[in-house]
Amino acid sequence: MSYFRFIFLVLLPVFASGQKTSFKVVPLGVKGGTDESNLSAYLIAPDKSNAFISLDAGTINAGIRKAIKKHTFKVSEETVLKEYIKGYFISHAHLDHVSGLIINSPGDSSKPVYATKECMELMQNNYFNGQTWANFGDAGPGFQLKKYHFQTLETHQEIPVKNTEMSVTAFPLSHVNPYQSTAFLVKSGDNYALYFGDTGPDEVEKSDKLAKVWEVIAPLIQNKKLKGIFIEVSFPNGQPDKFLFGHLTPNWFLKEMKNLEKISGEGSLKDLKLIITHKKPPLINEKIIRKELRENNPLELKLIFPQQGKAFRL
Amino acid sequence: MSYFRFIFLVLLPVFASGQKTSFKVVPLGVKGGTDESNLSAYLIAPDKSNAFISLDAGTINAGIRKAIKKHTFKVSEETVLKEYIKGYFISHAHLDHVSGLIINSPGDSSKPVYATKECMELMQNNYFNGQTWANFGDAGPGFQLKKYHFQTLETHQEIPVKNTEMSVTAFPLSHVNPYQSTAFLVKSGDNYALYFGDTGPDEVEKSDKLAKVWEVIAPLIQNKKLKGIFIEVSFPNGQPDKFLFGHLTPNWFLKEMKNLEKISGEGSLKDLKLIITHKKPPLINEKIIRKELRENNPLELKLIFPQQGKAFRL
Repeated sequence: MSYFRFIFLVLLPVFASGQKTSFKVVPLGVKGGTDESNLSAYLIAPDKSNAFISLDAGTINAGIRKAIKKHTFKVSEETVLKEYIKGYFISHAHLDHVSGLIINSPGDSSKPVYATKECMELMQNNYFNGQTWANFGDAGPGFQLKKYHFQTLETHQEIPVKNTEMSVTAFPLSHVNPYQSTAFLVKSGDNYALYFGDTGPDEVEKSDKLAKVWEVIAPLIQNKKLKGIFIEVSFPNGQPDKFLFGHLTPNWFLKEMKNLEKISGEGSLKDLKLIITHKKPPLINEKIIRKELRENNPLELKLIFPQQGKAFRL
Repeated sequence: MSYFRFIFLVLLPVFASGQKTSFKVVPLGVKGGTDESNLSAYLIAPDKSNAFISLDAGTINAGIRKAIKKHTFKVSEETVLKEYIKGYFISHAHLDHVSGLIINSPGDSSKPVYATKECMELMQNNYFNGQTWANFGDAGPGFQLKKYHFQTLETHQEIPVKNTEMSVTAFPLSHVNPYQSTAFLVKSGDNYALYFGDTGPDEVEKSDKLAKVWEVIAPLIQNKKLKGIFIEVSFPNGQPDKFLFGHLTPNWFLKEMKNLEKISGEGSLKDLKLIITHKKPPLINEKIIRKELRENNPLELKLIFPQQGKAFRL
């Protein structure tokens, strides 16, 4: 073995583990309300792939156009919509998480829409029902156009995502108990990313849904397999608990992160990537949320504030 | 009487009638699909007033921001939303006509939402139902937050619009028979503007809904009281009749205008302002629609292609 080859083989794994990223993310919308052109929707794919799924779908077209404008995508709007997005995972049926999917359905290609039974039935009965919108799916009321396959998810059960290299496991969340939202654990090879739909803190929700998720992901954190967590922080700390409407503040976010750390181990969350989603306008509140999170970060989380159309890696 | 005073008094009415406009319009969204940031919504008020109504509400916030950016409004987003918009008239419950109203309801002020019984029930049962969205209204399922007064409209019956100087009469339209859409005849003093929600041509719809509207407005045209008609042209002429989905093409639009002219009188539509709404993307189609309308305009209609955020007068 030559000296250079030896050096190469010894250093490669070190170099690779420092550089290696597992997922590519393109936010199509990042806000928790008001602005129709920028509502929750996150494209995620394995790092070298363009076979994305969309985690929620509040804004699709306006987000794709923004991503093209920012040179994140160098193909047409149509190509991103029809070819890059292989399926939608909808966390709950509130319109700010699904409006873009509905509005863009006429121009979309055939693909699955994934959701839990509760969320799927709400979408079928209230949106894709032949009354408020054509039924582009293959189940539910109204004439079924069968463009979308409505694939109902069992929680806690990993399923492969068609036409991608990823699989997803859904977990129930509490979003004004007993209203259910969903978290999606995305797996690619041996790497994971966790996406939360809207959720309140367990203590306010009188629920153990977040605690249950922390138990599942703690081992993935310990093994350094969890590459990032998308989680909502909708309101600044000034929002009273009784007006949380099933959302988190920076303080409640930190409290839940500490709950997680209790299981995953002291110091285990240091440098974990936390992508902060669903900040609710007005802009002044969005800035306060960011400031409050940054100024009280004892766990040394790596906070990421996503921007519409700007890609990042996990 | 001085010479100058004589000249002034003789010329004033002529000058005034040439200059006088009756309505101010600010489009908050103009497209018939795809782009969540630019869907059907037209603010209209008497010329000197800021007490607007919104005719449909596909996009609200993104449209207000565009209008402020274009200096159409010199006040805050919040002022336009909460104070300038005195009520919403929703033509039908398809999401591209009502999404902006729903998304913006948490930040809105108390005001009426007007719609026919059919449309109102669809909105109450599918959107403002406590499941897909909180019930911000005062009727229908779910806990009623009572911010909006859901005012059901009887067709053919003029009602005053609260907190404005306008009144409105609703007429039923056929949008894939038997699905109903609505036209709104807006009155301010002795002046009128007519807004059409989505509608197919009578011949394709096997309906007489448009014919009935033409009978009502023909006298207003003869008396020069009708200042403009907002009407949809969703597809280029290439769209086959069987795929119209309850919409108009330039050819069908012209055919309906000729039906109107048969009642209002030959040459009576010359220079009538026709505001073309709901052109469906892609952009190439929008351009073709415009070209086809302009190149075949034997009635010499004054065609207006509205732009988001840019005010015009009628």
